[in-house]
Amino acid sequence: MKSDIILLGHGSGGTLSHQLLDEIIIPALSDVAQRDQNDSAVIDYKGDRLAYTTDSYVVDPLFFPGGNIGDLAINGTVNDLAMAGARPLALSVGLILEEGLPLEELKTILTSMRNAAEHAGVRIVTGDTKVVPRGKADKVFINTSGIGVFDHPLDIRGSGARLGDKVLINGTVGNHGMAVLASREGLGLQSDICSDSASLGALTADLLKTHGEAVHVLRDPTRGGVATTLKEIARQSKADITLTEPQIPVDEAVGSACAILGLDPLFVANEGKMLAVVAAEAAEGILQTMRSHPEGHQAAIIGEVSGQSSGKVFMRTAIGGLRAIEMLAGEQLPRIC
Amino acid sequence: MKSDIILLGHGSGGTLSHQLLDEIIIPALSDVAQRDQNDSAVIDYKGDRLAYTTDSYVVDPLFFPGGNIGDLAINGTVNDLAMAGARPLALSVGLILEEGLPLEELKTILTSMRNAAEHAGVRIVTGDTKVVPRGKADKVFINTSGIGVFDHPLDIRGSGARLGDKVLINGTVGNHGMAVLASREGLGLQSDICSDSASLGALTADLLKTHGEAVHVLRDPTRGGVATTLKEIARQSKADITLTEPQIPVDEAVGSACAILGLDPLFVANEGKMLAVVAAEAAEGILQTMRSHPEGHQAAIIGEVSGQSSGKVFMRTAIGGLRAIEMLAGEQLPRIC
Repeated sequence: MKSDIILLGHGSGGTLSHQLLDEIIIPALSDVAQRDQNDSAVIDYKGDRLAYTTDSYVVDPLFFPGGNIGDLAINGTVNDLAMAGARPLALSVGLILEEGLPLEELKTILTSMRNAAEHAGVRIVTGDTKVVPRGKADKVFINTSGIGVFDHPLDIRGSGARLGDKVLINGTVGNHGMAVLASREGLGLQSDICSDSASLGALTADLLKTHGEAVHVLRDPTRGGVATTLKEIARQSKADITLTEPQIPVDEAVGSACAILGLDPLFVANEGKMLAVVAAEAAEGILQTMRSHPEGHQAAIIGEVSGQSSGKVFMRTAIGGLRAIEMLAGEQLPRIC
Repeated sequence: MKSDIILLGHGSGGTLSHQLLDEIIIPALSDVAQRDQNDSAVIDYKGDRLAYTTDSYVVDPLFFPGGNIGDLAINGTVNDLAMAGARPLALSVGLILEEGLPLEELKTILTSMRNAAEHAGVRIVTGDTKVVPRGKADKVFINTSGIGVFDHPLDIRGSGARLGDKVLINGTVGNHGMAVLASREGLGLQSDICSDSASLGALTADLLKTHGEAVHVLRDPTRGGVATTLKEIARQSKADITLTEPQIPVDEAVGSACAILGLDPLFVANEGKMLAVVAAEAAEGILQTMRSHPEGHQAAIIGEVSGQSSGKVFMRTAIGGLRAIEMLAGEQLPRIC
């Protein structure tokens, strides 16, 4: 580690986050923890499997077009279970509240959590609330953890990408991050960009039921965006992935806002998107299944597994060039989720 | 609710916490959540039972005599599972870090988590790290959730106290809260009080194995202390509980510090204590089992279930008086866990 204090970039989901995890957190926890590079851990229980995941949400501002910290906290954890191929069984909610928070804001957030949980068909079974004095937290932080169960014997992990596989995404990239950014005070960015925050549980369940073993990897490109997540998959699978730029769906408003701010939508967080690495011969069918869902009607095939063993990600540009894509370095957009 | 903003007392574990939960949180979450008044929820999985719990830790300062936020976060969640009669299967850890936190402090905290998890025989299987800018959190907040499994068919809940039952505690009361308080800067309170932070998993497993159905209720008196926790048990069981003051073990240093600050040790948080409500005829045997464990060598019988249906807690004082004990009102010691 080049720094001896925590930097904002350690929370980016990119290179610094990986360093913090690999060089500090995992070595210190030693043999009581192992780094599971997937969105959920899969644990054995009496010969059966359970998925288990946790995420804290510190998004700023609490409310943004298309959602708030409450539905984000439910959808994010449901999606982490869904990416393991699991169906959410139960969620926990841990609230850290800052003294002075208006109860009306808390009620709105909780109601959004309720609606998101109901939509995803999952129950909140346990919770905890802490309050800290004014100035010791920022309004509301939410932790959600979730337990998932498997309705099938499939094992969906980041290491499953194979040469020739196709890479799909269920819609446009960068909407969540740009919606949050645009809603921050003082940026003067007027836009109608909405977060894509959504539960992907029904979509993944349908994919796995309909296409089974043709689905090799599922992963949601949250912090660090599509680029960082694909880089993780490439490394885990010891494969190269090549994206085709013109095929990546980007909303015009998101593209414009990114251009103004000098951001690359490929590195911007999503909260209702999934990347699927699938067998080539099943790709068209999987695309159609995705498009039949409201969360997937803009789905597209955006690339393929183009090589083995190097863990690289390339972009074939609109004019035919090929450039390497690296993981997000530093912090692009703090507190986006 | 008398206030329209969050007050520190809403995090006390006492009356205001109960109000927030009953009047705001549970109604807003409506049918996706139910209030489980026990430390862990018990969920059905394929005809089997799993315990599930979550807690966030915001203790200030991070380091105090006898522990730090790291082992506290492991022990607290292990204990919530243990109080349901469950054995911890897996933990999750969610870190919220403030920009600028020295990595050395983080390492020390993580190493304590490692040691506490190893001692409790549980693995950390999944985690998440978020970073917020300076001034938007206070150094480190930790959420731990845990899944527990049952090695027996017993159902230990807060509603199990029966007329004539004895009430036991495994040692002295108030040590954790007073240790944290004494370690805060500026109080000028010199003491050698140590937190009682400890995992109670081995002790509860032995109690349930040896005494089985004679154990009616287990509960750890954390926020709100012994008084608030007994009040919860009395309400859930629709029973009255009468404590005998001279029998309640209190360290001399804790008693003195409480006297100086005008605090009642019965309302001060513990982090390695359990209350057990047990069948009268088994009480002596259970006391001996408790005393055979390092976490229970100062165990004592401190009271009994003295009536039915009113949910009251009384204290028989050293000079023979009888006074009613209420739940903690407001906030006595903020950020004690």
